[in-house]
Amino acid sequence: MGRTLTYPKLPFNTVNRHNDRATYDLRTIHSIINTTQVLHVSFNTGSINNDNPFPAILPMIGAMGSFEYPSADINEPMDCYLHGYVSSRVMNLARAASASASTLPSAVSTETAATATATDKGLPVCIAASKLDGLILSLTPNSHSYNYRSAILHGHASLVTDEAEKLYAMRLMTDSVVTGRWAATRVPPDGAEMASTAVLRVRVVGGSGKIRDGGVSDERKDSADESVTGRVWTGVVPVWETFGEPVRDGDGRVGEVPGYLAEFVEGRNAENRAYAEGAVYASEQKD
Amino acid sequence: MGRTLTYPKLPFNTVNRHNDRATYDLRTIHSIINTTQVLHVSFNTGSINNDNPFPAILPMIGAMGSFEYPSADINEPMDCYLHGYVSSRVMNLARAASASASTLPSAVSTETAATATATDKGLPVCIAASKLDGLILSLTPNSHSYNYRSAILHGHASLVTDEAEKLYAMRLMTDSVVTGRWAATRVPPDGAEMASTAVLRVRVVGGSGKIRDGGVSDERKDSADESVTGRVWTGVVPVWETFGEPVRDGDGRVGEVPGYLAEFVEGRNAENRAYAEGAVYASEQKD
Repeated sequence: MGRTLTYPKLPFNTVNRHNDRATYDLRTIHSIINTTQVLHVSFNTGSINNDNPFPAILPMIGAMGSFEYPSADINEPMDCYLHGYVSSRVMNLARAASASASTLPSAVSTETAATATATDKGLPVCIAASKLDGLILSLTPNSHSYNYRSAILHGHASLVTDEAEKLYAMRLMTDSVVTGRWAATRVPPDGAEMASTAVLRVRVVGGSGKIRDGGVSDERKDSADESVTGRVWTGVVPVWETFGEPVRDGDGRVGEVPGYLAEFVEGRNAENRAYAEGAVYASEQKD
Repeated sequence: MGRTLTYPKLPFNTVNRHNDRATYDLRTIHSIINTTQVLHVSFNTGSINNDNPFPAILPMIGAMGSFEYPSADINEPMDCYLHGYVSSRVMNLARAASASASTLPSAVSTETAATATATDKGLPVCIAASKLDGLILSLTPNSHSYNYRSAILHGHASLVTDEAEKLYAMRLMTDSVVTGRWAATRVPPDGAEMASTAVLRVRVVGGSGKIRDGGVSDERKDSADESVTGRVWTGVVPVWETFGEPVRDGDGRVGEVPGYLAEFVEGRNAENRAYAEGAVYASEQKD
């Protein structure tokens, strides 16, 4: 209770620009990850195709968790589990990375690390979660901005092979989409389903977050110019993710929208909207 | 009119998984980029810090455009201009990449390319735009999915140094945030503002998109099992980005929300909602 754990500032995760907006707080970073429905995961494919200098990005579903300490608080060190629209490419790369861990002597895998691909710890990945909270419309385009919350994690991704851990992660990720959904469906997955599902565990080595809230800010040269202030509308347009009325479809014969789902939709909508609308006034309260 | 231009299928942009959902159509890919308020841009920092195997991801603002052919249709080849929450790191990397183009013999820059960083064409980047359109809740977690639209571009990023092109790109990006905003503000930027603003032009070498729409689909083993269909609610929760009521703030003294802004907010909300709700039935109409 009361502890505030932070990620260390390392060369690859230190926020340089607007560093007054930076945070390294585990609770903040993990919460942004856990309430973002689509994560963006970047990795290099260089070892498979050496003439490809482009990192890849995949939109994926993921959630923070700890199989070793399932009761870990969101404020504590955790892994990031990933699943979803996974091309075979990232799975093959992670598999190769895991294989190299058990077969290659460490000198070789260190050399591999220098080429920015598989290391003995897994595939190096970068995970991003971003939430747009508002458009900041000021007197001049140069002072325009967004209210937003963004989180970045760096870590090593490996395929989860332990059945119990895989099941833990599958439940975690399903419930990250809709709280309580797992237990309300046909579970557990059967053998074929377990075999066809790939789950990545990312051992996090660093993280950072960045938050901008508050209202419009302009430079004095414009604020003091009545020919400008008299004709330009300034303000904030709050932005949030809305979950619509659930539409019954498919083979389920339950007519009424179940309680956990109605609560999730209403709760998340209220929370998202309140945050975006409240963010407009956040800096005024702080300063 | 009527032409359908597509990106070539190259090793780094070919969709492997669920490739029935893939698209290489320029119009579709460019439209997803242009209506996504936050893009995710990935690049490697390896040349600056060789012990860093992690690609970086930055959330950025961007838009498709063609300075050479400003009247180009969205269906035609275009560059992607980027601006926004740009750490000095990506700008330094792009600057170094541009510098190497003029000073290094091509054999050297080819070698550099193999380390997945700067090439003589600019900094290799991957740009992702993803829109979540709905949660697909089926009988069993393994059949759960999202309705979504995602686009990926690969290309080489260089700093824009030409003043006229920079101004073109600044207007393009401001209007991509709110249509018509540029002309309604104090413009053009003065000399200091131009100098402090960095704009990246990404020469696109490849792109791909992926779209999932439609309703719930389950496997026969569950659909035929009344003990499952009788107790699991199945359906779709549409999801879309909502723009709230504009909140007046800052030094502008215009009281009423201007027409272009009211139209943007109402138009975008109606469009986003209609797409998400319509996507539920999309496959049924198609099949």
